[in-house]
Amino acid sequence: MQVLKQCLHANLTKARQAGEPVQLEVYYETLCPDCILYLTRVLYPTWVLLQDILSVHLVPFGNAQESSSGSKYVFKCQHGEQECLGNMIQTCLLNMSDNAFLSIFCMEASTDVVASAKSCVNLYSPQLSWDRLMSCVDGDVGNQLMHQNALRTNALDPPHMFVPWVTINGVHTDDLQKKATTSLLPFICSMYKGIKPVVCGDTEASTGGSLQ
Amino acid sequence: MQVLKQCLHANLTKARQAGEPVQLEVYYETLCPDCILYLTRVLYPTWVLLQDILSVHLVPFGNAQESSSGSKYVFKCQHGEQECLGNMIQTCLLNMSDNAFLSIFCMEASTDVVASAKSCVNLYSPQLSWDRLMSCVDGDVGNQLMHQNALRTNALDPPHMFVPWVTINGVHTDDLQKKATTSLLPFICSMYKGIKPVVCGDTEASTGGSLQ
Repeated sequence: MQVLKQCLHANLTKARQAGEPVQLEVYYETLCPDCILYLTRVLYPTWVLLQDILSVHLVPFGNAQESSSGSKYVFKCQHGEQECLGNMIQTCLLNMSDNAFLSIFCMEASTDVVASAKSCVNLYSPQLSWDRLMSCVDGDVGNQLMHQNALRTNALDPPHMFVPWVTINGVHTDDLQKKATTSLLPFICSMYKGIKPVVCGDTEASTGGSLQ
Repeated sequence: MQVLKQCLHANLTKARQAGEPVQLEVYYETLCPDCILYLTRVLYPTWVLLQDILSVHLVPFGNAQESSSGSKYVFKCQHGEQECLGNMIQTCLLNMSDNAFLSIFCMEASTDVVASAKSCVNLYSPQLSWDRLMSCVDGDVGNQLMHQNALRTNALDPPHMFVPWVTINGVHTDDLQKKATTSLLPFICSMYKGIKPVVCGDTEASTGGSLQ
C-alpha cells in the first residue's frame, strides 16, 4: 500500500539546503505530560526556526502495547482510550496532510488534546475533511499505520525506556537524548554540517547588541 | 480605567530571571503578509524558546489611521475592514487573556486570520467567552484600547515606515530592526545581560555533536 510507505518517513522538512538535514525521530504518545511539553515548548518552535536543516519524524505510539485480534491489531495505551484515539488521529494526519505538524502542535498546546483535534484540523489542514480523516482513524488504513508505528517503536535499539524518546540520525544515546531535550536548537545547529542558518548565531549576530 | 492600564504593557513574559528581560515591542497589523510571517515563523517560536529573557509587547495597529466621530474613534486599516476587526480582536485578547499570544499565533498561522479567531480563542483562552470578547470588540472598551494603540504607534520616534516595526528596550534603529527580523534568537541572546538560558548555546552544547 503506497499510503503505508509514506507513513514510516513522514518527513516534515519543508526545504533542504546543501548538507543533509539532521534527522530527528521522536517517539511519543499524545497525552503524556512530558511529551506535551516537549512538543509544544521545544520541538515545534525549534523546528519552525530550523526547518531548513532539521527533519522531524514523529512516531505516535510510545508506551502503547499491541496485540492482534483476527485481522486487526488492537492497541492499549498508557493513558487510556483517549490517548489511543489521539495517537491514531495524529498518525493519520501525518499520513494525509502536508501541514500535520502545525495541527499536532495545535492539539498538544490545547487543554484537551483530543477534543481540539477537529478544530485544529479545520484550521490547519482545511483541504482534509474531518470525515476523511475519521475514515482513516476508524478503518483498516489507520490500523495498519499504527501497526507500523508499533513495529518501528519496538525495533528501537536500545529499546525506549520512557517517552519522549529520540534518535538523532538513527542513533540513541543518553547524551543525545539529553541534548535533544534540554538544548535542541544549539544542538541541531552543532550537528548540521552545511552552512548554518543565521538563527544558529554568527559573529555579527552574537556580538551585535550594544544598546544598553 | 484599570482595563486600559493593563493594555499599554500587555506583558507576555511568563517568568523573569535575574537580569531584566529584553523588551521587544512589535507594531503590526493583522493581515499584512510580512507581519504574518514574522509573527508565526520568527516571533512566536523565538518567544516560546526565550520567554524567560524576552518580554514581547504586541501593538496591533500598524498603518491604520484614526479619526474621531462624536465620542468614538473611527479606524481605517490598510487591508480593509477585516483587518480592523482582526486588530480589534487581538487588542481585546491582549487585554483580557493571559494566553493571548498563543491565540494570536493560532489566528495568524491559519489561512483566514479573522475567521479563525473564534476557534483559536476557544482553544487557547477557554475561560474567556466569545461573547465577552465581542463585547470588548464592539464596545467602548475596545474603542479606547485601539485609541491607545494609535497613540502609541503615532508617538514612535522615529516614526514607523513599514510593518512589522520593532523597538528593542524602547529604541528603534535600522540595525536593530534588521537583527530583530533576520536573527531574532541570537540577537536577543546577545542583548540579554543575565545568565543566558541553554537555548542560547554554550560550549558544551555547541561542541557536543560528534555522531557523524
